Amino acid sequence: MHLRVILPIIGDTFIEQIRSEVSAWVSPGTEVDVVSLDHGPASIESEYDEALAGPGILQRVEEANADGVDAIFVSCGADPAIQAAREITDLPVVGGFEPAMLTALTLGERIGILQVLPNVLPMLRSLARRYAIGERLGTIRVIDLPVLGLSHGDDLVDRLVEQAASAVCAGEADVLVLGCTGMLGVAAAVQERLAADGLVVPVVDPTAAAVLWLESQVRMRLTASRTTYLTPPAKERIA
Amino acid sequence: MHLRVILPIIGDTFIEQIRSEVSAWVSPGTEVDVVSLDHGPASIESEYDEALAGPGILQRVEEANADGVDAIFVSCGADPAIQAAREITDLPVVGGFEPAMLTALTLGERIGILQVLPNVLPMLRSLARRYAIGERLGTIRVIDLPVLGLSHGDDLVDRLVEQAASAVCAGEADVLVLGCTGMLGVAAAVQERLAADGLVVPVVDPTAAAVLWLESQVRMRLTASRTTYLTPPAKERIA
Amino acid sequence: MHLRVILPIIGDTFIEQIRSEVSAWVSPGTEVDVVSLDHGPASIESEYDEALAGPGILQRVEEANADGVDAIFVSCGADPAIQAAREITDLPVVGGFEPAMLTALTLGERIGILQVLPNVLPMLRSLARRYAIGERLGTIRVIDLPVLGLSHGDDLVDRLVEQAASAVCAGEADVLVLGCTGMLGVAAAVQERLAADGLVVPVVDPTAAAVLWLESQVRMRLTASRTTYLTPPAKERIA
Amino acid sequence: MHLRVILPIIGDTFIEQIRSEVSAWVSPGTEVDVVSLDHGPASIESEYDEALAGPGILQRVEEANADGVDAIFVSCGADPAIQAAREITDLPVVGGFEPAMLTALTLGERIGILQVLPNVLPMLRSLARRYAIGERLGTIRVIDLPVLGLSHGDDLVDRLVEQAASAVCAGEADVLVLGCTGMLGVAAAVQERLAADGLVVPVVDPTAAAVLWLESQVRMRLTASRTTYLTPPAKERIA
Amino acid sequence: MHLRVILPIIGDTFIEQIRSEVSAWVSPGTEVDVVSLDHGPASIESEYDEALAGPGILQRVEEANADGVDAIFVSCGADPAIQAAREITDLPVVGGFEPAMLTALTLGERIGILQVLPNVLPMLRSLARRYAIGERLGTIRVIDLPVLGLSHGDDLVDRLVEQAASAVCAGEADVLVLGCTGMLGVAAAVQERLAADGLVVPVVDPTAAAVLWLESQVRMRLTASRTTYLTPPAKERIA
Amino acid sequence: MHLRVILPIIGDTFIEQIRSEVSAWVSPGTEVDVVSLDHGPASIESEYDEALAGPGILQRVEEANADGVDAIFVSCGADPAIQAAREITDLPVVGGFEPAMLTALTLGERIGILQVLPNVLPMLRSLARRYAIGERLGTIRVIDLPVLGLSHGDDLVDRLVEQAASAVCAGEADVLVLGCTGMLGVAAAVQERLAADGLVVPVVDPTAAAVLWLESQVRMRLTASRTTYLTPPAKERIA
Repeated sequence: MHLRVILPIIGDTFIEQIRSEVSAWVSPGTEVDVVSLDHGPASIESEYDEALAGPGILQRVEEANADGVDAIFVSCGADPAIQAAREITDLPVVGGFEPAMLTALTLGERIGILQVLPNVLPMLRSLARRYAIGERLGTIRVIDLPVLGLSHGDDLVDRLVEQAASAVCAGEADVLVLGCTGMLGVAAAVQERLAADGLVVPVVDPTAAAVLWLESQVRMRLTASRTTYLTPPAKERIA
Repeated sequence: MHLRVILPIIGDTFIEQIRSEVSAWVSPGTEVDVVSLDHGPASIESEYDEALAGPGILQRVEEANADGVDAIFVSCGADPAIQAAREITDLPVVGGFEPAMLTALTLGERIGILQVLPNVLPMLRSLARRYAIGERLGTIRVIDLPVLGLSHGDDLVDRLVEQAASAVCAGEADVLVLGCTGMLGVAAAVQERLAADGLVVPVVDPTAAAVLWLESQVRMRLTASRTTYLTPPAKERIA
Repeated sequence: MHLRVILPIIGDTFIEQIRSEVSAWVSPGTEVDVVSLDHGPASIESEYDEALAGPGILQRVEEANADGVDAIFVSCGADPAIQAAREITDLPVVGGFEPAMLTALTLGERIGILQVLPNVLPMLRSLARRYAIGERLGTIRVIDLPVLGLSHGDDLVDRLVEQAASAVCAGEADVLVLGCTGMLGVAAAVQERLAADGLVVPVVDPTAAAVLWLESQVRMRLTASRTTYLTPPAKERIA
Repeated sequence: MHLRVILPIIGDTFIEQIRSEVSAWVSPGTEVDVVSLDHGPASIESEYDEALAGPGILQRVEEANADGVDAIFVSCGADPAIQAAREITDLPVVGGFEPAMLTALTLGERIGILQVLPNVLPMLRSLARRYAIGERLGTIRVIDLPVLGLSHGDDLVDRLVEQAASAVCAGEADVLVLGCTGMLGVAAAVQERLAADGLVVPVVDPTAAAVLWLESQVRMRLTASRTTYLTPPAKERIA
Repeated sequence: MHLRVILPIIGDTFIEQIRSEVSAWVSPGTEVDVVSLDHGPASIESEYDEALAGPGILQRVEEANADGVDAIFVSCGADPAIQAAREITDLPVVGGFEPAMLTALTLGERIGILQVLPNVLPMLRSLARRYAIGERLGTIRVIDLPVLGLSHGDDLVDRLVEQAASAVCAGEADVLVLGCTGMLGVAAAVQERLAADGLVVPVVDPTAAAVLWLESQVRMRLTASRTTYLTPPAKERIA
Repeated sequence: MHLRVILPIIGDTFIEQIRSEVSAWVSPGTEVDVVSLDHGPASIESEYDEALAGPGILQRVEEANADGVDAIFVSCGADPAIQAAREITDLPVVGGFEPAMLTALTLGERIGILQVLPNVLPMLRSLARRYAIGERLGTIRVIDLPVLGLSHGDDLVDRLVEQAASAVCAGEADVLVLGCTGMLGVAAAVQERLAADGLVVPVVDPTAAAVLWLESQVRMRLTASRTTYLTPPAKERIA
């Protein structure tokens, strides 16, 4: 199987890190490659960033389609351009929000999302309503670190544990979802720290959830419904 | 007052028609200008089209902001890039969906939307859920005419009346919303035809609803909340 | 255009104040007159008061209809007898709740209502559910001043700011609605005081929202659906 | 126990019939009296009628309170002035809608209401939303007989059976509620006729449900919450 | 009338206490008997306990059916096996949750449940959603006493009052429901203590609510819908 | 990895068929064994059957726990005893409903479930509400074949295609879920037949969805939240 990861931001800085992380989750034999955008924002922390990234993501989806990959992961916690992508490809496509949230639904009653900045809260709340899974969204907590600060934030785990523990103790979360796909490789550490404090709650890594979701869809040979994701009518479009 | 209409598609074909229609609705003394996009689709009939139009719309919003206009109408029934636009300007900004739906809420119990193609149904249903007003959305009916066929569709009113009457008689709609801002200047005719058939239900024109909504917001000096629409953090962005 | 304001309480005390306030919001050329009731309560602060005011309001609606006015504003934050009124007139009729709430929906994610007394909370919560817009109602806060104390409450703005700031800081409101139409002429001051404290959130004045809503409906020639608001069957009724 | 029935319409025509019907449902030893209104409509078939009946109902509630009765039934399927009544008395007060609907909830998944005229549909739908029990309201069917025609409608049972059977066969109802308290003494016949046709579904009589509900509340010594139904502040009120 | 109480736990310890309590609520002439289980848990405080009790409860339901009783009360706040029971008998059957919650709905806006241990919270929340009455569930508070500790917990009333007062003062409850049918004979005392503290809110006893509910159903001759509770197909089943 | 399948019915008839089917879906190296019950029903087609199977399932869960397996699949479309099971083991446990429904959520807007008999409809609707994913459940269609008739129903695929096509054409389903885990090995055929008729909609096999879900959870090392699924208190329990 060939998995294409679309990093919906400009620059190559994170490509190796993402490839390494995704490769750690895939099944033996799954090939992984990662592409970023030529046009768009340096990170996605607002609806504005998300809109700017849209055409670049869709161009990468078309390329992935042409390249004959088997599945596409748009590595961002806000699911940018995911519905649009499903309209133009038969390949399974997910972002980081939907698989992580659905994974969390089987693990506990109320979901708490841990996020980077307050800017993204309304976008995530809207997304949960859009998918009609908002009833079990208990809280969204922010750690006040921008996306680009995550990788060198020595205290990232501390901040996540602090917000997670506060949400769990307040009865607002039974399962946690890391809301940003840039929070790489810390889910297990957060889960362990919480358990050490007596809070035995799962912490869902959105990259892992997305990758395994895609592998499952490929194995089940499931593709998006064409009565929901209709092929866009042919017309002039200027890139 | 100065109203800027952003037509979120490429080409100048509809600019005069839109300007004329919008000008018919504004208060005396309100100045109207209409701009279209350099990059994007020829019409918006899918999430794919909507995503492609995003950056072009936001560029026009920034220009409107710089030009000192008072309000912005993105003339499309799918509210493309509206939330993103509110993050980057203090001006009132609406699309064609939200004001028409909210206007309809005061007029009758169940709202029926009349739309162009089946492709847009999931997008509108998602939008209604996103705004949390979906409980009173009774039905969405399609007339099976593409956007670009609306202006020379001699039978546009016939098709709208047929679908509207069917929805009202089935008990699925008490008030109708024209779901595409390209359905210009026909709301009154549809409403009259329905009334002549004994179906006294209002038909909301999305252009009228949007324009009057914006005028009201300007007169009330209301702008979007900065705890919902936070200013995007500064960062590198490549257009 | 001729706008009739029905003040759904007994006494003439507030008539001039309301006329002056409403006149400040209407378009040039709109005529405003204000009537109060012969029978009913001195203020509306309970479902009991609302029910007592019902027949008097409907009598005034019938008079307005006969007088040939163009629109009717029932100046009360609890929308008393509004649905009944729509059954007996083709004129646009709104109270103070519905237009303010719908206006707020486009401005921010969660709505916070500022109200006079705890007595009105269940009534407003029920109203939000009735209109099916309750999902985005974040909180209702009370300032503990009765309606008749609002006009000489020197600290009205202070109390509103205090409750508003508390709601916004608790993450329970992104946009505020003044819940009582007796809170005249203070919305802008509250909004400014909040902004000065760094809380850039809009504050919706229900009188302004209602008046502009009605003007828009008149300009769009929209009247209530007769499949929702059916004309009551003829029968004996004793006033 | 002393049960006061308030018939929220003018005229004495139905008093004996209601008294007889209610008496058939109460426990041995319960005293029943029935009063109608001096002011109000001849029947309640619209929000307009409901609003006109409000002050008269509340006057009767105050009298019942002064008379030392134990419980109050406002005999109407639209629950007129019920919330207002609870604000001014410690006695249990119900109308015909709430107890019948709650009784139905334990009997089957989807509730079908059988009603007199299309005029009342939006009022009932709003009521269901107001009480937050609308999710299980499957359908409302009308038999197209006005309230005042129910008593001499020889075909009342036929019409009810026809609509009930249609709703059940369409999968829209598993339990039926007679929506008008003027549909006296026919629930059992409708239920039997449906069962004879192989449709074993319960049919709830709103008068029975209300009367037994009140007896239960009296026996449990439960009265309405004063944090929901606060005592209205003292003020001038002109009847 | 003959009422069968099924105590869904093993052992005879509580039989006399339950019989005495239930007998205090029934109408004159109603016969009460109480049976417990041969197989199952000593108390129900988890979904695990509930599942273990299922077959034993259903065996007792079949026996009650054969014995010709008139109604069945499964005395547990988690409504164990209630839906299954309705499939195999025409007798009215309720547990302790549904009647108490529905009774509470008419008494106040938001319901607060008082429960024994945190273990039962998700089960009750799920139950409220299952019945589609969760929108008005304000809070569930625990008193941290196991079921088997309730009878000799001298401070049971103190703990209930403490949690109830906290919930009411926080605006999370207007009416309280005792969530465990083992909290016998304390509802009135809790209600009085709260009223003495100025919190005039009703406290619903689940045993009383269930018993009176069943008596009402018997008097109305209502049985469960056979389109919701279909008779299970014949097949081999090994006990 | 070692996967234990619990077939929650008596008898060995289906064990080989289930083992073969599950084995076809697991990853290379995953060991599969299947156990059935000593006590319980021959198939699960009602809440009654589900309750009877409960203790037997939980006994098998405890054995699986003791045997050191890695994950447990209770092979039934009604998720029997799943929540109870999660309380007593740290292993991932799912039934056939939850993973299939969550898988379907990413594939299309409205989910249509195909089921065996009308008996199971209320149970599945309740389950969807319990999980709070009911908003996107479009329809449940039955093929009127009992579970035990599925394996020799030559026309199983025909019946599934007929109901599926009807649901899709009526606009009630965009993605289909086989609602019974006894519908083995037909999902692909149904999907192909629908596609051949121009209905390009995915058909989710619940066995495949459950098995891959469990493998993903094991790979992510996620276990159920102990604030939702608390360990049951120790007490006497008689099997």
